Amino acid sequence: MSRHVTPEEVQRGEAVFGPLTQSLRELIDVAIRSDADADDARRAHALIEEATALLGTRLDPKPFGVPSTGDGRYLPWGNVAMGLRNAIAPPLIIQRDDNDRVATDLVLGAAYEGPPGQVHGGMCALVLDHLLGATAHRAGAPAFTGTLTLRYVAPTPLGRLRAEAWIEREDRGKTFAAGHILDAQGVATVQAEGVFIRPRGNA
Amino acid sequence: MSRHVTPEEVQRGEAVFGPLTQSLRELIDVAIRSDADADDARRAHALIEEATALLGTRLDPKPFGVPSTGDGRYLPWGNVAMGLRNAIAPPLIIQRDDNDRVATDLVLGAAYEGPPGQVHGGMCALVLDHLLGATAHRAGAPAFTGTLTLRYVAPTPLGRLRAEAWIEREDRGKTFAAGHILDAQGVATVQAEGVFIRPRGNA
Repeated sequence: MSRHVTPEEVQRGEAVFGPLTQSLRELIDVAIRSDADADDARRAHALIEEATALLGTRLDPKPFGVPSTGDGRYLPWGNVAMGLRNAIAPPLIIQRDDNDRVATDLVLGAAYEGPPGQVHGGMCALVLDHLLGATAHRAGAPAFTGTLTLRYVAPTPLGRLRAEAWIEREDRGKTFAAGHILDAQGVATVQAEGVFIRPRGNA
Repeated sequence: MSRHVTPEEVQRGEAVFGPLTQSLRELIDVAIRSDADADDARRAHALIEEATALLGTRLDPKPFGVPSTGDGRYLPWGNVAMGLRNAIAPPLIIQRDDNDRVATDLVLGAAYEGPPGQVHGGMCALVLDHLLGATAHRAGAPAFTGTLTLRYVAPTPLGRLRAEAWIEREDRGKTFAAGHILDAQGVATVQAEGVFIRPRGNA
């Protein structure tokens, strides 16, 4: 957590790498659904390698981590669930209704498929782990998952979804949270309960 | 599950789209760790859009699903955990030691980060959901997650990992499975138990 980023890096991340990553999410999606012939696919492959070489000329050997801006902001840009610079992340954009309740509206397309036409059960778990954990999160003091229990009560169709989480109770640095994923009709498809722990000194 | 693919499509998938997707995984990683200047990043962005346009000229409007080759093989190539054509997937390559036990060796890099230097708890959940589910899987008869319980007993460092799962017992189409993720020293970091269900008619 000790790395700091400069205001110039913050600006470049938001103005340049954010939009690049959004385009990369589209590329991931079309690479799955494309019926391009072998020649077009090989040309696309060459363009991907060219982009990788350009970005790879100056490369941090370490993972992104959660650097600080030095003025109270933290940048989880590499995070697999919510990272601005991580094309795997949908990304989750978390709304805090109040201190005890969080929610996210998201669209999960072909790239998150498990059973045909449905979101992978493990992807539902990733969304709920992150969202339940967010109820326990404090700036600069992330919470770690202790336990997580998931009940899959109905298929989760690909498409527009909403996830919600809330705090059931807190006890000496442990947050007991619950939540669910709702389909476009507002029906709960996966229910979750979890215990999240903030390391000593951060509670 | 009704879509069929031709032998030519299978060949093109394995020879062309598989390697393209592997390069795309590298691009996702460098897009997170790159310290390229704004000009190089904008050029890389343009190349990404060009690749997307090429692949998008012929596009299946539907998610990939699990098409059949017509001769007993199924192709979960869009799957977010194991799909040959899904750049989000590490991908998991599942070894079946025997009917009751499965394992996967994998390397999770910067693209799977949660806490600094560690695998996101939700990503561990995705790996374990998929692997425990694989114990219940039969060709053409995928199992759906009923419940999944995860215990995070130690941080999971980014890097080389192994996950293992096995059947505890089976009861009328329900498979009770357990498993864990092991770090490079063989220490369990996340333990899981789950119940997986095969739809009626497939049990």
